[in-house]
Amino acid sequence: KINDDTRVDPIVLKLQMSLEQIEKGGYENFMLKEIHEQPKAITDTFRGRLLAEENMIKMSSIEDNLDRFLNANRIIIVACGTSWHAGLVAEYLFEDLARIPVEVEYASEFRYRNPIITDKDVVIAISQSGETADTLAAIKLAKSKGAFVYGVCNVVGSSIARETDSGAYTHAGPEIGVASTKAFTTQITVLTLIALKLGKANKSLSDEVFKNYLDKMQMIPKQVEQLLKIDEHVKSIAAVYKDSKNCLYLGRGFNFPVALEGALKLKEISYIHAEGYPAAEMKHGPIALIDENMPIFVIATNKGHYEKVVSNIQEIKARAGKIIAVVTEGDTQVRDIADHVIEIPDTEEALTPLLTTIPFQLLSYHIAVMLGRNVDQPRNLAKSVTVE
Amino acid sequence: KINDDTRVDPIVLKLQMSLEQIEKGGYENFMLKEIHEQPKAITDTFRGRLLAEENMIKMSSIEDNLDRFLNANRIIIVACGTSWHAGLVAEYLFEDLARIPVEVEYASEFRYRNPIITDKDVVIAISQSGETADTLAAIKLAKSKGAFVYGVCNVVGSSIARETDSGAYTHAGPEIGVASTKAFTTQITVLTLIALKLGKANKSLSDEVFKNYLDKMQMIPKQVEQLLKIDEHVKSIAAVYKDSKNCLYLGRGFNFPVALEGALKLKEISYIHAEGYPAAEMKHGPIALIDENMPIFVIATNKGHYEKVVSNIQEIKARAGKIIAVVTEGDTQVRDIADHVIEIPDTEEALTPLLTTIPFQLLSYHIAVMLGRNVDQPRNLAKSVTVE
Repeated sequence: KINDDTRVDPIVLKLQMSLEQIEKGGYENFMLKEIHEQPKAITDTFRGRLLAEENMIKMSSIEDNLDRFLNANRIIIVACGTSWHAGLVAEYLFEDLARIPVEVEYASEFRYRNPIITDKDVVIAISQSGETADTLAAIKLAKSKGAFVYGVCNVVGSSIARETDSGAYTHAGPEIGVASTKAFTTQITVLTLIALKLGKANKSLSDEVFKNYLDKMQMIPKQVEQLLKIDEHVKSIAAVYKDSKNCLYLGRGFNFPVALEGALKLKEISYIHAEGYPAAEMKHGPIALIDENMPIFVIATNKGHYEKVVSNIQEIKARAGKIIAVVTEGDTQVRDIADHVIEIPDTEEALTPLLTTIPFQLLSYHIAVMLGRNVDQPRNLAKSVTVE
Repeated sequence: KINDDTRVDPIVLKLQMSLEQIEKGGYENFMLKEIHEQPKAITDTFRGRLLAEENMIKMSSIEDNLDRFLNANRIIIVACGTSWHAGLVAEYLFEDLARIPVEVEYASEFRYRNPIITDKDVVIAISQSGETADTLAAIKLAKSKGAFVYGVCNVVGSSIARETDSGAYTHAGPEIGVASTKAFTTQITVLTLIALKLGKANKSLSDEVFKNYLDKMQMIPKQVEQLLKIDEHVKSIAAVYKDSKNCLYLGRGFNFPVALEGALKLKEISYIHAEGYPAAEMKHGPIALIDENMPIFVIATNKGHYEKVVSNIQEIKARAGKIIAVVTEGDTQVRDIADHVIEIPDTEEALTPLLTTIPFQLLSYHIAVMLGRNVDQPRNLAKSVTVE
């Protein structure tokens, strides 16, 4: 923006980082540290926003633009990789809690395909680094069509934070491991807060239901902390399946994107070919892959589609597939048929992605370590994809 | 619908099938026969609809409901498996040719997630058999919310054909192989005709552009016929990669869904774990998988995103990945860097999925035969998924 020789005053931005944040702090690598930082990262992302005692969510970036959101024809979410998975969770959150239609797009596809955007649309761009080239290009395109663009980034002052009309930071702190962990859960945290706030504002959520969500939301950091304690159990499962060449991850509803993210994490750091699917799609093709060598990781919490997922599990067991199921604590039905179960604490269905994600992070981590991979810097990958 | 003892007159529906249609007719199996029937199946699907000389597309199911389509807030496409891939192609077709916003949903996810549908929405349900349980349930849900529901089925008189408000049949003839081939290309044919008709009606397409599409469309069956002649070349490539444990399929834009479908075909009949991705997403994770043992099938036709795809190919080659590229005839740039190329005839970008699909069908077929699989009845799979 410097066009001539006139003297300009430099702007000095001081990094809001402590030395401790960018050191491993006793952990073997950054990824493990960042997995364990999630209770704090989620709490930091709540801070000043989730005010359970006052029964409100305070986010000036939403309040100041409430009309744009409430009158939106639809919300279009653009992102890449793990952030795209957070966007898919948000689709379920916004549609279910706030009854606003959502379309989630790969930024790279959106920007090149002459998308239909109007000034009645709201575009939400999600990126940890705030520098993802395709997402940045998608934002510029959306702005040129008059859409209101809202950013969800982690890095303060990043390009996306500057290019968007408004936005909210995740307060995950620096994420150094290339495979995203706390950035994902804090993105979901921010997106859940927005969905709840909009649902309250347009009366899709009653006061009572809203209040219940705030209470349950506030319990999440403690529940994540509790989940992290099952590390040894997850490690023992990792030891069984570490030599698999292929895996499938299945989920339904809010946890379909978690299945995609679980598979991506394993791909990224262990180089095992894992793929995520909505559980009911299995029968339309992928079930042909299943034999005793193909472990299947299934999210089968006791909400919405429980019975349907149980029947998907039975179909897999009938074909000799190995099942590792993530279930709600106290579950007995899935425990009886699965080869391994991992329990998560009970919460509202819409909040389960913040919990079900954790065991998959630990699982990928342990498998990668057992295989001797460099978990912080996996081959071929860069932390932020700043080229197109 | 029989509620009491009153005598009713039976309705006799005569199967519109000849014996020849349900025999293998000299082919080793139904799948190969059905792959080779595609020029005829696409022509049959055009018949009476694509009137190039009169410069028009005639489809009474669209003409009678033109207002519903042109005034739709958005078109929601629901389907499963291969039909869902046809729906993804349709998203690109409708948005690009007719400028109508489209959302594509897995029927199984849509029906269970309290979706936002209004009487201003048009729902298109796609199913070869017309009996897919999840799709049928999604239709009932959409109808209960007042949406106009349009069906694209192959089987005349099927449940979905009867439950929808209107629709168009694909005229693929009986498809007996479990892995869908001609059903997919005829679904895309019907959906392309609809997109062109709507684009002409709402003036998104000029008369000239529309005319050009009709001319190019009419050449497709001959071009498919020409493509089927490269069978021996595809077979020689199949021989090289038949023992791969994992494959990736990449495409962008209109050909991203073709990559998904290519991967599904290989999964279904060869039991090799293949996964499709939009090419630009590679850098956000899957590229970690790539080494000399992981063949990558890339669609790199000379349209829209050609330069971007070339750069994706270069990234893969830099990591020792093996590239099999589907290119436009006469291409030299990709030929120089890819390990193998398969040429398709030139056409408009929006019509390329009808051609790029063919070599992937042949490839999956030959690999499966070389591995001794039962290609018509792969393990674990049913032709129509009539359970939820």
